[in-house]
Amino acid sequence: MKVEIITIGDEILIGQIIETNSAWMAAELTKAGFEVTHIHSVGDSAQTIIDAIDLAFSRSDILLLTGGIGPTHDDITKNTLCRYFNTELIFSNEVLENILNIFAHRNISLNELTRNQALVPEGCTVIQNKTGTAPILWFQRQQKVLVSMPGVPFEMETTMTDDIIPRLKLQFHLEKYLKESFLVAGITESALAMRLSEFEKELPNGISLAYLPLYGLIKLRLFTRNTANPGLLQEQKELFQEQTALFQEQSEKLRNLIVDLLVSENEKLLEELLGEKLQMRQLTISTAESCTGGLVAHKITSVAGASAYFTGSVVSYSNEVKERILDVNKSDLDTFGAVSEEVVVQMARNCAELLKTDCAIAVSGIAGPTGGSEEKPVGTVWICTYCRGKSIAKKYNVGNSRRENIERSANMAILQMLKMM
Amino acid sequence: MKVEIITIGDEILIGQIIETNSAWMAAELTKAGFEVTHIHSVGDSAQTIIDAIDLAFSRSDILLLTGGIGPTHDDITKNTLCRYFNTELIFSNEVLENILNIFAHRNISLNELTRNQALVPEGCTVIQNKTGTAPILWFQRQQKVLVSMPGVPFEMETTMTDDIIPRLKLQFHLEKYLKESFLVAGITESALAMRLSEFEKELPNGISLAYLPLYGLIKLRLFTRNTANPGLLQEQKELFQEQTALFQEQSEKLRNLIVDLLVSENEKLLEELLGEKLQMRQLTISTAESCTGGLVAHKITSVAGASAYFTGSVVSYSNEVKERILDVNKSDLDTFGAVSEEVVVQMARNCAELLKTDCAIAVSGIAGPTGGSEEKPVGTVWICTYCRGKSIAKKYNVGNSRRENIERSANMAILQMLKMM
Repeated sequence: MKVEIITIGDEILIGQIIETNSAWMAAELTKAGFEVTHIHSVGDSAQTIIDAIDLAFSRSDILLLTGGIGPTHDDITKNTLCRYFNTELIFSNEVLENILNIFAHRNISLNELTRNQALVPEGCTVIQNKTGTAPILWFQRQQKVLVSMPGVPFEMETTMTDDIIPRLKLQFHLEKYLKESFLVAGITESALAMRLSEFEKELPNGISLAYLPLYGLIKLRLFTRNTANPGLLQEQKELFQEQTALFQEQSEKLRNLIVDLLVSENEKLLEELLGEKLQMRQLTISTAESCTGGLVAHKITSVAGASAYFTGSVVSYSNEVKERILDVNKSDLDTFGAVSEEVVVQMARNCAELLKTDCAIAVSGIAGPTGGSEEKPVGTVWICTYCRGKSIAKKYNVGNSRRENIERSANMAILQMLKMM
Repeated sequence: MKVEIITIGDEILIGQIIETNSAWMAAELTKAGFEVTHIHSVGDSAQTIIDAIDLAFSRSDILLLTGGIGPTHDDITKNTLCRYFNTELIFSNEVLENILNIFAHRNISLNELTRNQALVPEGCTVIQNKTGTAPILWFQRQQKVLVSMPGVPFEMETTMTDDIIPRLKLQFHLEKYLKESFLVAGITESALAMRLSEFEKELPNGISLAYLPLYGLIKLRLFTRNTANPGLLQEQKELFQEQTALFQEQSEKLRNLIVDLLVSENEKLLEELLGEKLQMRQLTISTAESCTGGLVAHKITSVAGASAYFTGSVVSYSNEVKERILDVNKSDLDTFGAVSEEVVVQMARNCAELLKTDCAIAVSGIAGPTGGSEEKPVGTVWICTYCRGKSIAKKYNVGNSRRENIERSANMAILQMLKMM
């Protein structure tokens, strides 16, 4: 079932925000068995919105709109939808009640603009917004559907999960989407493609392989759509099972070809994998960070439940803090510099001791744009991983820009820890 | 001059990545005076790519494509462009030389797949990729232009900055885009809109105001396009100056209306503003973080040159680390809990003392999904900012999801520090 996502807002077209709603929606819709064929972003202009809806209806069954339904004058989606569906706004007491509830919860009183949020197009199905004031609008056009949702990520995510996806599933027949992801490291994209060229040539029709480079890692994605409908005839059931078995066979074959490079499967993030391994072995961890400035700790603590194995970090940005808090030898700092094997090993060992953890990750590097030299250019990073008396230190050349250097260093640090375990 | 951005890749449509290239491009193009009217994302399918190009050419002058030009089989943009422009691939020695240079720099040897990157469509202008192996392709169609670029952000950003934007500026006349941004805090979106309703009603034709909520803050954007061409006739020059003056007048008027709520101007990030203020007053800072897990430190160190004022952090995730490293009183931890005024004030004061800084930010809260209680639900956060003997502690209720709670807490912490200064 084909879906198009239309995100609305001038702020997207002038690059003032990075639009993340469509990625979240696409992931959830794919998981549920829908096929997202196009994502468009358009500005707050009635004619542009109408043109985008017309185009999307001409080729797809489901249109999901986000944005442009706030209480302010620049939000024109609701009026534009009235014009498109040839209807007008009416006052909904139900929506007003919902808004009052939400405001009571937040101790805010209603003003005129928010009251206008209770105006909804006549004839559409109104779905209450549990986490905000803008109602969700569901329009039916023969067999096709258009839903208008808020652009605030949390509000959109709540209604998609609780209301929209369940309702769409009731109305449409879905194909099952089969997917397997492998995260690999230690190889270039083209060398990997050459290793897999025979496999790719022999792939059965309808199964595809894609490569996705990710800050020093490569994600391989094998995917297909199971076109059979298992709920109906016996013949379809058998076909469904055949297609599923064929996909699993290919997935296993691919896995064997890259097993030496494999880092993670099933879309699991490095930091999630690290958390699982630590818990399984009942180990605790801490970090000592210089150039990553706390990003490794932030990644580790982004995983719910991290407090079971993570106790804390020392971000030792200055040499003085490296020396005084992490007890790094001053003469080593002077002789070898902060970005060196000698220093990073002491950072890791002493961090584990200070924060009383079994393991520790230490990172010291030159993030740039300044601070590089001929011997140690911007992008040079030393990483030491430590676990119960043993340590491994490695040097990396991570990249070119400050943001990239920090991100890649954090990934490489968690990866090195994972490999060590 | 109208521009459309087309990003290509199945990984976008299944939500496997958040596509950030278009936001970066849109920001740079807007700054340079171009108008981005549409952003589309399509999959790795030749017909879909061709349809998107056809549609974009029918309404715009400049088409910028990213993605689908890697060395692997799933990358089909180059062949699709050959089909669209009715041409064929020829071997370019110049491109091969560029690839060999890049590989020499990275100590990798050439393989067959990478060699194929030197195949380019006959008749297009080839621009060398300084940071990767896929060449940039520039197609001219009468007065219109299509450029195909890599999807790797760093490669795209380099060629856009060094080659594409300068070349486009030579070929097209640009309107000047006038924009002023104000970041405000401490008010709801609808209350702000009511305060500004008179101002909005009286805004001259062509000048627009937009509201953008951002993790506890609201960004106001006033913008217009200066339609006059200052390089030509005297009449146009005067018109240009008039339009600019009118915009500046409105911008000043808006600024006065919100001056009590104003946090930052000119798209400056909170962490950049903090860095400037600290440097101006020759103050240093450190952070003591619990629920934010290092994110405040990461934000502060994302600003180039942060080492001038930031010395380090203690991420004290466990109570034991709060007690032992940050010297928080054990009986206070037991009596009031880690998420309390008593604890967060000690975290801040002791952090400044331990890391020898003038100022310190401390955050302790319940990020969720678990750990909340009736008295302290998920989203409760205490923030203390400290500066040379003085401290301010405040309690916030930040949000609903773990990610949102961590992000909002970090923003509120930096904001509170800024306000204190």
